Amino acid sequence: MRGVVMYAPGDVRVEDRDDPRIEQPTDAVIRLSAACVCGSDLWPYRGIEKVEGPAPMGHEYVGVVEEVGGEVTSVKPGQFVVGSFWASDNTCEMCQAGYQSACVHRVPMGMLGSQAEYLRVPLADGTLVAMPEPPPAELVPSYLAASDVLGTGWFAAVAAEAGPGKTVAVVGDGAVGLLAVLAAKQLGAERIIAMSRHESRQNLAREFGATDIVVERGDEGIARIKDLTNGLGAHSVVEAVGTQESMMQAIHSARAGGSVGFVGVTHDVTLPGMDMFWSMVRLQGGPAPVRRFLPHLMELIGDRTIEPGKVFDQELPLDQAAEGYKAMDERRAIKTLLRP
Amino acid sequence: MRGVVMYAPGDVRVEDRDDPRIEQPTDAVIRLSAACVCGSDLWPYRGIEKVEGPAPMGHEYVGVVEEVGGEVTSVKPGQFVVGSFWASDNTCEMCQAGYQSACVHRVPMGMLGSQAEYLRVPLADGTLVAMPEPPPAELVPSYLAASDVLGTGWFAAVAAEAGPGKTVAVVGDGAVGLLAVLAAKQLGAERIIAMSRHESRQNLAREFGATDIVVERGDEGIARIKDLTNGLGAHSVVEAVGTQESMMQAIHSARAGGSVGFVGVTHDVTLPGMDMFWSMVRLQGGPAPVRRFLPHLMELIGDRTIEPGKVFDQELPLDQAAEGYKAMDERRAIKTLLRP
Repeated sequence: MRGVVMYAPGDVRVEDRDDPRIEQPTDAVIRLSAACVCGSDLWPYRGIEKVEGPAPMGHEYVGVVEEVGGEVTSVKPGQFVVGSFWASDNTCEMCQAGYQSACVHRVPMGMLGSQAEYLRVPLADGTLVAMPEPPPAELVPSYLAASDVLGTGWFAAVAAEAGPGKTVAVVGDGAVGLLAVLAAKQLGAERIIAMSRHESRQNLAREFGATDIVVERGDEGIARIKDLTNGLGAHSVVEAVGTQESMMQAIHSARAGGSVGFVGVTHDVTLPGMDMFWSMVRLQGGPAPVRRFLPHLMELIGDRTIEPGKVFDQELPLDQAAEGYKAMDERRAIKTLLRP
Repeated sequence: MRGVVMYAPGDVRVEDRDDPRIEQPTDAVIRLSAACVCGSDLWPYRGIEKVEGPAPMGHEYVGVVEEVGGEVTSVKPGQFVVGSFWASDNTCEMCQAGYQSACVHRVPMGMLGSQAEYLRVPLADGTLVAMPEPPPAELVPSYLAASDVLGTGWFAAVAAEAGPGKTVAVVGDGAVGLLAVLAAKQLGAERIIAMSRHESRQNLAREFGATDIVVERGDEGIARIKDLTNGLGAHSVVEAVGTQESMMQAIHSARAGGSVGFVGVTHDVTLPGMDMFWSMVRLQGGPAPVRRFLPHLMELIGDRTIEPGKVFDQELPLDQAAEGYKAMDERRAIKTLLRP
């Protein structure tokens, strides 16, 4: 089959890879309906994260089940399925507590590479959510978004305790930040401040529910959030970047007793203890337990309450994946959908 | 009046200070029934925090109202009162949200110095909780504990989300850590693990509700907590020390999705972003909003449900305050009560 492989920073190729096959009786193999490039794929692409290349790429996926192992009972060949970027058994104590990304048997899907024609999904019963009918084509991008960026933005908004009566600020205008705006809106937030200086992203943020746009960053951005919140800071802040500046911007944009949900994969970030102490914010982040939210998100997509697929502003055949990486790296595209 | 003044690290004196007087119409002046030395007073005493000496010392207090300013309506001369170590108006948006330690008009009581015969209390209506009758003498130490260490331990346990069905680990066996054990017990925790290697403190921890004692520290302490929790870590962890080691011990003793409440005043602490990301713990700390809990804590003391005053294992006349600092510094005393 054809699949994306990263050899080195900036060096992404689409080449022949071995077809995946059932390795464990709990596996499924799916044929991808769509795949995509994630903001987190840009860390190795930019050389900020080490590339253990040649490495298969991609961890977001929707598709049709081709084959299942002997112990799989809840999905069957022919079904359209959505899964999260962590395979999880969905039965262990961590999964039952809603932290499937900390499942005691978790497997990172990125190791398996979903930017491809076929994908092996471990722990298929726990990982995949099957639909009764295949969705109409125009909803496929939205289901694909649910696999990571929507679920991650949603988790960030939940960790930030977005809800009725709350003012929510979102640091980061990538796909995750924009979908955290959508999540905050769905969770009932009263006011949603998107921090962005890119017009197309500002427009999408407004469409998803942002009530205010702040273009300033760093200390100026913090001051602007304070201005908008009676000097106190936001009740809830989402961090969706992962740099030192964005983390400090998020923490200091929240009021005492407020909450920060961070989902940007932190790189060279250190949080000064004194800032954490005196800010009195509640901080939670990490790899999102997307599986917790997946059935609900799929319902919202199915009944057309939300359309997270709008974050895909570029669509390419799988064979042109390298151009997708380049466009996202250069911020010409918010998120690139790949058609196998 | 007589009062404690710190001149330099290790140099604590009791000397004549000006009698406090009403400066603002919202002030009260109280005659202290008891005062005490706080673990946080040891940071400057040990030279870890800069001493801007000669500095009046002390921020915990119970006493009888001597005089009130013209705008004070809720307390009156002759009443026995308890207050928190932050003066707060208890009416602003932060106070109403339960974060009186972030009151927009807050005043740190430590600047005023409660290790003395008399104390000026700003924002008396918001800060002080008056009792209908003066308490029996044997309960005075417990009310004094409510002013800071009990309220701080309680906040830490609340921030750590201690409650029914939860396993709570407490890092730090000072007065705050021990009272966090008591708080966790009152909040209904199922299992409470005190981390302590001092027999007298272990005994008090058990008396307050600890079900398990762990003597190991650092990575060994973390491994021991994991052993006791099915390999997952505690649901709730209280950090009551403030060092790099204790913070990392707390964070890594919690399970993914668990909560860490930290109230040790952080010194030279930096939290690696990657540890926060991958641990998936919820972290909240800072100066405790003791005023939020004070009425409830005073009820529990008054009906003898709890006896937090047991943390005072040394009692000295105010004039011997220097010995109290020395005993706590050398860990000969858990907490020293001073009688003005």
